[in-house]
Parts: sequence; structure tokens; C-alpha cells
Amino acid sequence: MNIAILGTGIVGTTIGMKLIDIEHNVMMGSRSASNEKAMAWKAKAGSNASVGTFADAARHGEIAFNCTLGVASLEALRSAGAENLKGKILIDVSDPLDFSKGFPPFLSVSNTDSLGEQIQREFPDTKVVKTLNTTNTYIMVNPSLIPGEHDMFICGNDAEAKVKVEDILRTWFGWKIIYDLGDITNARATEMLLPIWVRLYGKLSTANFNFHVVK
Amino acid sequence: MNIAILGTGIVGTTIGMKLIDIEHNVMMGSRSASNEKAMAWKAKAGSNASVGTFADAARHGEIAFNCTLGVASLEALRSAGAENLKGKILIDVSDPLDFSKGFPPFLSVSNTDSLGEQIQREFPDTKVVKTLNTTNTYIMVNPSLIPGEHDMFICGNDAEAKVKVEDILRTWFGWKIIYDLGDITNARATEMLLPIWVRLYGKLSTANFNFHVVK
Repeated sequence: MNIAILGTGIVGTTIGMKLIDIEHNVMMGSRSASNEKAMAWKAKAGSNASVGTFADAARHGEIAFNCTLGVASLEALRSAGAENLKGKILIDVSDPLDFSKGFPPFLSVSNTDSLGEQIQREFPDTKVVKTLNTTNTYIMVNPSLIPGEHDMFICGNDAEAKVKVEDILRTWFGWKIIYDLGDITNARATEMLLPIWVRLYGKLSTANFNFHVVK
Repeated sequence: MNIAILGTGIVGTTIGMKLIDIEHNVMMGSRSASNEKAMAWKAKAGSNASVGTFADAARHGEIAFNCTLGVASLEALRSAGAENLKGKILIDVSDPLDFSKGFPPFLSVSNTDSLGEQIQREFPDTKVVKTLNTTNTYIMVNPSLIPGEHDMFICGNDAEAKVKVEDILRTWFGWKIIYDLGDITNARATEMLLPIWVRLYGKLSTANFNFHVVK
């Protein structure tokens, strides 16, 4: 499948490499078509990988992953272009973490709104599915890095899009327990997991952990 | 030990009954010394139980549990009186859930502040320890209701008070895994777990679940 990765950070390059490993055609988009990190990724990822602007990548992808920093996501997606994302699934893995006042970060939007909702409002013709944002990127694409049961959450307004993304989570990445929380307003809840995530990260000195709902 | 329970709801009566069961002298405080729910609790709880105003209870307790509704906690604690809580440990189990716009509730304070911090700021001579606020009240006092490993969080500014409260969690209630997140500002993180808690509660149709950090 032709897939767009928007963002060249550790999340974008890790998800991008995983998608290459399972034989997809991945274009990584960023502000500049000659972004150094994207070029380095392409050099490692091989012939199924390509690099372009946010708009190039959005045009290329049948689906797109938003892997930009949460505080910069709306600007990046505007640059990608509503017309290039129209009718497509956008898997939003970002969190609105604001480090401008140091660690731990606060959320630039929360409680009565969320980044997922902001994106969905600004791109009404795109099917925004919020998921993967509650764990680190290596676990996102390989949940078996952590032993035992642990969970992923998903939300979005389009039921069919969520079915497709759940299938992606299960068959491409290996997720087993997935809670569909409902419409995109539920992104508030998963984004608000980040404050405890970052504190546990500080405390445990590892990002290799995830949450499990024990019943 | 003489203990104050502030609040007469399900959280107050459940914790109060548990403390009676393990032989403590518990006074339940509320706005009125003849509160019906407190009187009903006392009738069941027996001779080690007593009922009074918030101030009566705060005076009685060597430690106090804040079991009032989060949106009403500051007012209740003012009524209890700073002088009656001075030098004491206040275990704050409440969450600032605002249901005024329906379900799911939002938080009346979050992200860059928390109820735990508001209480600590207003009662600087009281040792506020935030804990137990991330699970339902039956699990608070009996974590073995849920099989397997699951976790409790604690935070507060006074290290010695936290040691005492950790001991209470372990020896009185049976908690095994407790993460000390640091000072009271970390109440932001545990209170911000509530948005996903309430959604999971809606989805699972049970409150008998808890979070576990899987590593």
C-alpha cells in the first residue's frame, strides 16, 4: 500500500521503517523535500522508501500517519493540504506535549478539547483515527517488546476507518487488546494519559512500558 | 487510631467502614452533624464510629481522608478548618470531576494545576498526600478484588507523610505496587487519569478495573 509518514522524528522513522519491512511503499514528508533525517531514513529503508514535502507525501499515501510533534501538527497538516488528505484515513499518533516550560511537559490542549479533535475539525473530509499515542514508538510497531498483556486505545468518528485501523494495529503491528473508546472526542482521554506517562518515564528511566486495564 | 473521614458519599462510607473493621476510631464529618447518610453509616458501623461536622471530624482525626466530591472539596476543607488540620496528614482521594455538562465529566482543574495542589496551597500546614483517586472505592480498600498485579500512585510534598501513607496503603488496604511520583504537582497526572477511567467505566459497564504499568 502507498503510505504517507508525516514527520521525520523518531516516531516517523520507526513507523516508516516498520512499514517498509512489511513491503509497503512509504513516502516520508516534511517541510523540505531534502530534509536530512528523511534522506538518512530513505538511505537505510531502500527502494520502497521515498521522500518529499508534506504535500508530496499526503498525495502519495492512501493512508497517512501523523508523526509530527503535536504542537506543530496543525501547521504541518495545513502544509500537507486538505485536498491531498481528502477522503483518506489519517492515523494521528501525536500528542500535544509542550516542553516550553521544561519537564514534565504540559498539554497545549486538553480536558475540553484535544489535538485529535482540532485536526478532525480542521480537516472534516479526512477520517482522523487517534491511536498509538499512549506508548513509545518502538512499542507502537512491536508491542511484543513488552511481555504479557497491555493495551491500545483507538477513537475516531468514522466506524469503517476504525475497523481498518484496528486491522492495521493487529496484523501489521501485532496489537492484541484494543479498546475502541468511541468518537474523536475521546482523544481527550488518551492524550491526557501522557502526563502520567511522562512522569513514569522519568521515574522508571525507561520508555519501555505500557498501560494495561486489569479487570 | 483516631481518623477523620470527610464526606458521606460512597467513598467516605466505604473507607470509613474498612477503617472500623480494622479497629480504628472513625468520625465521619459533613456539613451537618446530623447528616442522614453519616447517621446510617454510624448505625451500621457501631461503637467505634461517630458523626460530626467537618470541623468536629478534623479535630478528632490524627489523620484525615478527603472523600468529598472534588468540586466541593475546598469548601468542605475550609469548613473543616485549617487549625483543625494543622500538622496532620490529609489523604486526598478526590478528583475534580465536573458532571455539569453530562457524561463523561471534564476536570474542573487540570494540566497546569490540580485539586491536590489547590488543597496543599490553601492548607500549607497540612501534609496533603494524593492517592487512591485512580480507582473505585471498593478497590481502594480491597485491591485484591481484582486479580493479578495492578497499581496505585502516590504523591505529596512531605516525604515522611508519604512513607506513613504508603504503609497505610500496604498494611491496612493491601496495596502491593505503589509508585511514588514525587511532589504534589504530580497530582495533575493522576487526576488526569480520570478522563480515561470514566470512559472505560462507560465502555466496560463495570468500575471493577484498575491500571497496571506493564514493563
